[in-house]
Amino acid sequence: MKICRYNDDRLGIVIDGEIHDVTAAQNEIRAAHPYASKSDAIVAALPDWRERLEKMAADAEPISVDSVKLLPPIARPGKLMAAPVNYKAHIDEAQADPGIRHIERTTKIKEAGIFLKSNTALIGPSDSIPIRFPDRRNDHEFEFALVIGEECSRVSQADALDVIAGYTLGLDMTVRGPEDRSARKSCDGYAVLGPWMVTADEIPDPDNVSFHGSVNGNVKQDANTSDQVLSIRELIEYASEYYTLYPGDVMYTGSPEGVSEVKAGDELHFVCDRIGDFKIGVGG
Amino acid sequence: MKICRYNDDRLGIVIDGEIHDVTAAQNEIRAAHPYASKSDAIVAALPDWRERLEKMAADAEPISVDSVKLLPPIARPGKLMAAPVNYKAHIDEAQADPGIRHIERTTKIKEAGIFLKSNTALIGPSDSIPIRFPDRRNDHEFEFALVIGEECSRVSQADALDVIAGYTLGLDMTVRGPEDRSARKSCDGYAVLGPWMVTADEIPDPDNVSFHGSVNGNVKQDANTSDQVLSIRELIEYASEYYTLYPGDVMYTGSPEGVSEVKAGDELHFVCDRIGDFKIGVGG
Repeated sequence: MKICRYNDDRLGIVIDGEIHDVTAAQNEIRAAHPYASKSDAIVAALPDWRERLEKMAADAEPISVDSVKLLPPIARPGKLMAAPVNYKAHIDEAQADPGIRHIERTTKIKEAGIFLKSNTALIGPSDSIPIRFPDRRNDHEFEFALVIGEECSRVSQADALDVIAGYTLGLDMTVRGPEDRSARKSCDGYAVLGPWMVTADEIPDPDNVSFHGSVNGNVKQDANTSDQVLSIRELIEYASEYYTLYPGDVMYTGSPEGVSEVKAGDELHFVCDRIGDFKIGVGG
Repeated sequence: MKICRYNDDRLGIVIDGEIHDVTAAQNEIRAAHPYASKSDAIVAALPDWRERLEKMAADAEPISVDSVKLLPPIARPGKLMAAPVNYKAHIDEAQADPGIRHIERTTKIKEAGIFLKSNTALIGPSDSIPIRFPDRRNDHEFEFALVIGEECSRVSQADALDVIAGYTLGLDMTVRGPEDRSARKSCDGYAVLGPWMVTADEIPDPDNVSFHGSVNGNVKQDANTSDQVLSIRELIEYASEYYTLYPGDVMYTGSPEGVSEVKAGDELHFVCDRIGDFKIGVGG
């Protein structure tokens, strides 16, 4: 199942490239969800609601995806996690380029640690990315992203895939420089998610997913998750050593090689056969 | 005005050390607040609601603070920011102690950058702090904390105090080690806030606030915000260069000297005459 948010915070199921509105379910689910919850209401409710959502979607008139404004598929993630240095060839390119590397302390992910991006940086693909520091280097990082489906902590690799609700595509936009990653990667609009979340049952092997990202039609990053240093299972195990994961928590699983600078006016295109694609512009 | 959350997510106004329930207002405010908002509903509504809250509080029966469970005063912050290396004497102690310093890249706050703590790490003073990695060093950092009151970006120092809703006390619990701060400081319960938020009008000069923190009755950190490297105004200016600040966003303004290791069974006591105090236990 593919779940999207669109227009003025509506919920849709995407079937054969068309959206079927299930906002009535979203209203009911959210109304029952505690305000101070650390989970996203829809993701938390998915196990109980999935069949009802499918029935509602089947009864709804299809809407063209091209006619809507797509929002980030998760309305209210508890946290946006991101894995640094998780593709060998990206580590190599970063080491070779002082403009990327700056004052990195380590190239080992378990010394670098999973970092956070601000929830307030989150946008969807129909928005545009405003470059916050035009005088500095701002890079695209096209990343495969996962969404946690249940509250869990200290998850074993054997159980790791069971705690995933689904997958989506994440642009981990980045200002290069010396500051902590959680500052440089949290500017407004620097956390893009879209075009929708594909539930985990549709991607039984997340360690073999191809994707590519282009800038103005030129492919810059072309990767397969099989090249990750820590696999999806290992990332879940590692992150959940540090903290509880909640339904709706998102993890950007790391940038492959091919990062490059973007400028106002550029158009980024993210393509993944297993999920979908989106284009997003870079603003001033 | 002092605003607290307590018991099963009730809202109270603290007057002369007693709580006056205004949960009916909270229900109305939240019901009108968009689910996907980047702001906390109560903090965002405060300018409009303040007089009504005061009237409701005056009509409510007082409840003893000691009889309730205090929750973090902000239910749903957009982000928890924190300032590293913001007291000179703490920088000196960290440089002198490899157990604190590890692989620090810089002691300059504008090179280190404002970092993030996970929203899912947030607890209130009636909870306890579970030590996540008992085999590693886990330190207390008692910090003066501010709460943003309005949506703002690129705020000048001259305007900075106007965007603050209020102040509270923050324990920035920390695992020492090489990982990114946003990992080491985001374990469950490692972001304590309490006992309540004091609105900004009650602390017209936040750059001259004394506070101290003790462990098992021994004062460990005793400081005044006048010793901060970046003042409150400068912190707001600096953070808001990176991203928009939203009502309910919290900033831990930095740890003074005197950090030390805590263990299960310890009791931490945070005291600030201008705000209040709370005790919190360290769990296993």
